[in-house]
Amino acid sequence: MSSPKPQEGTCGPTDLVGPESWSKVSCPCCISAQVEPLVLIQLAENVQPNTKQWIMAMISAPQVSGGAGLLAHPGEDASWGRIVVAAPRCSLLKATEDLGLCKADTDGNMITFSFTDRDKFSNIGDMQTFLTLAERQYIVKYALESMRAMKDLRIPGISGDKGVLKSRQSIFQKLQKAGVILDVFPLRHEKKLKALGREWYSQKSLWGQPLDRIHAYFGGSIAFYFSFLDFYTWALVPPAVVGLFITFFLPRWGSTDTPDPVTKPESPDGDGDQSVSGLMVQAVFSMIWSTVFMELWKRRSAALSYHWGSITLTERFQEPRPGFTGILGVNPVTGRMEPLFPDWKRQVRVGLVSVPVVLLFLGLVVLGMLGFYYCEAQMASFHKESGSIITAILSYLPSVIHITYTNMLGNAYRNVAQRLTDYENHREESSYQNHHTTKVLVFTFFNNFAVLFHIAFYKQDLNLLRKRLSSLLIISQVVNQFTEVFVPYIVDRFYSSPEKELKEDDPEADHLQAEGSLPAFPGLFAEYIELLVQFGYLSLFSCVYPLTAVLLLLNNITEIRGDAYKICCLFRKPFSPPETGMGVWQAAFELLGFVSVVSNCWLLLLAPRVKAFTLDAGLNTATVLVYAILVEHALIIVKLILAFMIPDEPDWVRIKREQIEYRSMKAVSQQKVKRASASELPPSKS
Amino acid sequence: MSSPKPQEGTCGPTDLVGPESWSKVSCPCCISAQVEPLVLIQLAENVQPNTKQWIMAMISAPQVSGGAGLLAHPGEDASWGRIVVAAPRCSLLKATEDLGLCKADTDGNMITFSFTDRDKFSNIGDMQTFLTLAERQYIVKYALESMRAMKDLRIPGISGDKGVLKSRQSIFQKLQKAGVILDVFPLRHEKKLKALGREWYSQKSLWGQPLDRIHAYFGGSIAFYFSFLDFYTWALVPPAVVGLFITFFLPRWGSTDTPDPVTKPESPDGDGDQSVSGLMVQAVFSMIWSTVFMELWKRRSAALSYHWGSITLTERFQEPRPGFTGILGVNPVTGRMEPLFPDWKRQVRVGLVSVPVVLLFLGLVVLGMLGFYYCEAQMASFHKESGSIITAILSYLPSVIHITYTNMLGNAYRNVAQRLTDYENHREESSYQNHHTTKVLVFTFFNNFAVLFHIAFYKQDLNLLRKRLSSLLIISQVVNQFTEVFVPYIVDRFYSSPEKELKEDDPEADHLQAEGSLPAFPGLFAEYIELLVQFGYLSLFSCVYPLTAVLLLLNNITEIRGDAYKICCLFRKPFSPPETGMGVWQAAFELLGFVSVVSNCWLLLLAPRVKAFTLDAGLNTATVLVYAILVEHALIIVKLILAFMIPDEPDWVRIKREQIEYRSMKAVSQQKVKRASASELPPSKS
Repeated sequence: MSSPKPQEGTCGPTDLVGPESWSKVSCPCCISAQVEPLVLIQLAENVQPNTKQWIMAMISAPQVSGGAGLLAHPGEDASWGRIVVAAPRCSLLKATEDLGLCKADTDGNMITFSFTDRDKFSNIGDMQTFLTLAERQYIVKYALESMRAMKDLRIPGISGDKGVLKSRQSIFQKLQKAGVILDVFPLRHEKKLKALGREWYSQKSLWGQPLDRIHAYFGGSIAFYFSFLDFYTWALVPPAVVGLFITFFLPRWGSTDTPDPVTKPESPDGDGDQSVSGLMVQAVFSMIWSTVFMELWKRRSAALSYHWGSITLTERFQEPRPGFTGILGVNPVTGRMEPLFPDWKRQVRVGLVSVPVVLLFLGLVVLGMLGFYYCEAQMASFHKESGSIITAILSYLPSVIHITYTNMLGNAYRNVAQRLTDYENHREESSYQNHHTTKVLVFTFFNNFAVLFHIAFYKQDLNLLRKRLSSLLIISQVVNQFTEVFVPYIVDRFYSSPEKELKEDDPEADHLQAEGSLPAFPGLFAEYIELLVQFGYLSLFSCVYPLTAVLLLLNNITEIRGDAYKICCLFRKPFSPPETGMGVWQAAFELLGFVSVVSNCWLLLLAPRVKAFTLDAGLNTATVLVYAILVEHALIIVKLILAFMIPDEPDWVRIKREQIEYRSMKAVSQQKVKRASASELPPSKS
Repeated sequence: MSSPKPQEGTCGPTDLVGPESWSKVSCPCCISAQVEPLVLIQLAENVQPNTKQWIMAMISAPQVSGGAGLLAHPGEDASWGRIVVAAPRCSLLKATEDLGLCKADTDGNMITFSFTDRDKFSNIGDMQTFLTLAERQYIVKYALESMRAMKDLRIPGISGDKGVLKSRQSIFQKLQKAGVILDVFPLRHEKKLKALGREWYSQKSLWGQPLDRIHAYFGGSIAFYFSFLDFYTWALVPPAVVGLFITFFLPRWGSTDTPDPVTKPESPDGDGDQSVSGLMVQAVFSMIWSTVFMELWKRRSAALSYHWGSITLTERFQEPRPGFTGILGVNPVTGRMEPLFPDWKRQVRVGLVSVPVVLLFLGLVVLGMLGFYYCEAQMASFHKESGSIITAILSYLPSVIHITYTNMLGNAYRNVAQRLTDYENHREESSYQNHHTTKVLVFTFFNNFAVLFHIAFYKQDLNLLRKRLSSLLIISQVVNQFTEVFVPYIVDRFYSSPEKELKEDDPEADHLQAEGSLPAFPGLFAEYIELLVQFGYLSLFSCVYPLTAVLLLLNNITEIRGDAYKICCLFRKPFSPPETGMGVWQAAFELLGFVSVVSNCWLLLLAPRVKAFTLDAGLNTATVLVYAILVEHALIIVKLILAFMIPDEPDWVRIKREQIEYRSMKAVSQQKVKRASASELPPSKS
């Protein structure tokens, strides 16, 4: 098979082919269209030629007969175990309607795409302008995953149970489970990627990401992550300014308990009142800031969702996710044959297995912490008694053991959380993700904040808290940047260099080879967790260490570039579905906002200044506590009112959304009238 | 005009007429159907014959030409100023589809009604079985309110601006504003009403209401109120049992602070521990009970909603409500000409007028309360000094003044709340209702609970709280029952008797006359408020007075009968739209549940037993407060987890709902495929 020449004017990611060498298309509209290779399917090495032929035939088969309605290409000579997939125009358009994407009409308004009314939409002639690259690639994945066996059949070239397909079974899932298909990934578009990188991580200016281009190239979920990172970084400016102001221009506000008694000597003269009001202002500011920030982000998120056409995504009745198992039966909702698993069994598994195991791990975290404190105290007294070098070195032992223990526990927990969620046997991908995320979040919170809460509320040592917080912030940033960007960069640069060189020499030939050699993108989970922990440090403990926001701001400016470089250069391009927002992470950030009100309120009470002030004012501890309770409850009420009062979407988005809804309602009712008048009502029999 | 003879087999509320004397129907299917009078329109006395003729013509005109598509009858000789309205079959069915009502198909499953597929539904031949009476009457109202002028025109017989109709203006609103239409109400169905009354308020058995029949006769919102009342009454059994148990079988638990020291002498021996744990158990029980109750009600509510076919009600793009004013312009969403009023102006009015006025009234409540306490203390000391009969009588003066003041304030506030909400100029009826309800609720809460909270947390006098609570419960019940049922009954019995007698003699002739003479139903607002205040007494202060639930249980058993009698016999039948649940009241009850956790937690702390116990244990007040804070936060977290864990709808309802959604999605996509194949895709031009 000779490598076909690239066609003039084709701007596909690999200028692989003209239409002639692709599988036949049944639809008349798509014959003359140029073909753009979008997705690569990686097959196992031992796959038989007739199996590959059958897979390609299924991919090209129309959707009504269980195929994907796509175009398949067997790839070049050297890469036998690969199938390159493209999509004809009408399959792309039909899927756009299925997904409920909005597109700009000829007047420039975004409206839900309708295949019948397709001529109303602008750019409808050119699929590469009408849909983004990420959307086209996601649609291919979606079509591949929709392939179903229409009757019981056997996959050619695969013996035994592995090759048996039951009616309505997902072909793609079966092929993956049977080990025939090893991997599927979207092809990267070198030119676009380089242009994106120039604008994104190589730019000189401090701020501004090309969010629309990120959305076009990488797709919804990734674009939302970077948009949030962007917005969050901007939002850090006010608390950073306040933090700097408090630290450097109003040293008296934080003086009594600064960790730096050399430069700013204690001033015990009666400025307690000012100090207290300063702390108060900061705590209230922090509370209002976190609320307003999340509310404004919701508005920004709604605007982006409109702008990117994902405001009216269709909620579909999903097929079970690949890992789902159960007894074959009829789904009561859809009437399809599929594995069934009763809800109560899942609930029993969650309640009697997952919850106790998670609690056990939380207990282990606490145990480790207590053990650490105990050992440290023992060591310190031991060192005091016999102050030799050996005991001095030994006094570091508890810390080392504790860090090792925490790390091991974290790794074990990640594993366990995955397995527990697998065992819970969720039918829907979204439910699986929610349960998994919740498990990891609970543990991460505990693991990161238990020590800080212990120091703050049990030991009540705000100086130690401040030290711990600042070292955590600085160390974790350095470690993160190092492990996330520097190490992969080095590995990429020096260890995978031969392939790189090859690619530089002949960009066409081994393009697909290079594509496959990059590691898969690990997902945004770890990135979101990192942001959340940061946000936790800031919102939970900010009134103790005003510089938190400044440090986070600096971190985020590098984080944006690091993450951008990582996703562009160090990993294979991931699939990224259209999304309406951050999903479960939105809830996690909002929850943290609530905890922060409580935390700040009680931290304030423990501040030595406040303590001194209340004693000076002749209040006993009980009275102060009662006031604190009142303040806490009032702050929570204020927060709720604020969150309620700021609308979740800007007015113009609301109007646009309502316009879309109104049009679709009108369209449905007009259609009903047409159908009704077509079949006129016969006279009543009664 | 001679009164037409009733037709054999017609079971309309007034057996008024056969089809011949009604206005003409254009639809061929409806000619042979029997005609059931459903709604009565009351005109002003001075209305010209040609105006009445025109109104009847518009009512009979098809909906495409701006009419209501209904049947109109000029009424009998004596009642010139009336129009009786009925609905032809196809108008009823089309409105059923418009509203998104679910109906049973031939297999007995509830599915969203579709006019085109109407033959799939059972009882489709007989409108009086297919739709409930309340649904038919609501549909008539809905169709009347949908009448629009198709071009600028003048209402015949009305001079001046009052008679000018602009294009797209609501005819019905205009006629009401011009004073031509005085009233519209659904006709009552004597036979059905009597049968319902027998089953409902005249029955001997303690429990059980004919909810389905209530729904059929009175409609969604009223049926939901009585269902809630029913469910709530059942739900009171567990706390009543616990309350009785605590009061009579475990006297020691509440002994130290019972208001009855004669029968149960103080036992100061060390049973503090048991007492404390008892109180604890009760507070935790109360918290769990209120959460579980509201969650179970949500499930019950979802089941009722499915059962009554209101689970998939269409959210429509409503016309502005009658009271809404603004500058005429184009609605950006619907593109219709209508009055517009900017949101920010409304927000300014809410923020700068409504909120301060409401706060002022809340301040007046507090002021009144403080004044009362001050005067009472003054009077008491005055009486002590010069103990004459005059001062003894005078010592009642503060109470009398306070009660009068509170009543006057309440009446003034009701008025003010209405006016403020009018002034806020809400476009949608639902928005108006929400703002009005919120205003009234805030004040009612304050007015009812401020004194109790003052006694509990400021005076910290739990004995007084207990006395006040029990007298409030008993007195308010007696007063409620008296004013709500007994007074109207007496008025109805003795003052409106002449008409009643007439009606008894000749049920046909003056039926419509009698109908109009009853007062209009005042709505469920006051009823819900009453339940909410009760629920407040129970959930906020139950750990102080364990018998609250018992008293409420007794009250509710009579309340059900009283409310039922009232709505059946003392008021005109109201229109009641199909509803999916309790709406804003659901949120109010849930909010109260949260406040109750906080309240119970701190009340517990004030209980003398607990105080004594903590002192015995050698804890200082601050430590106890810290524990209380921890317990409170933990309880709120438990409550949130409980609420999250209990699904809001039973599994079977979820499956049914998803079935309905899946079918409608399938129907839409099949239609799309049909339309798409009808207009085949032309070859791409690119």
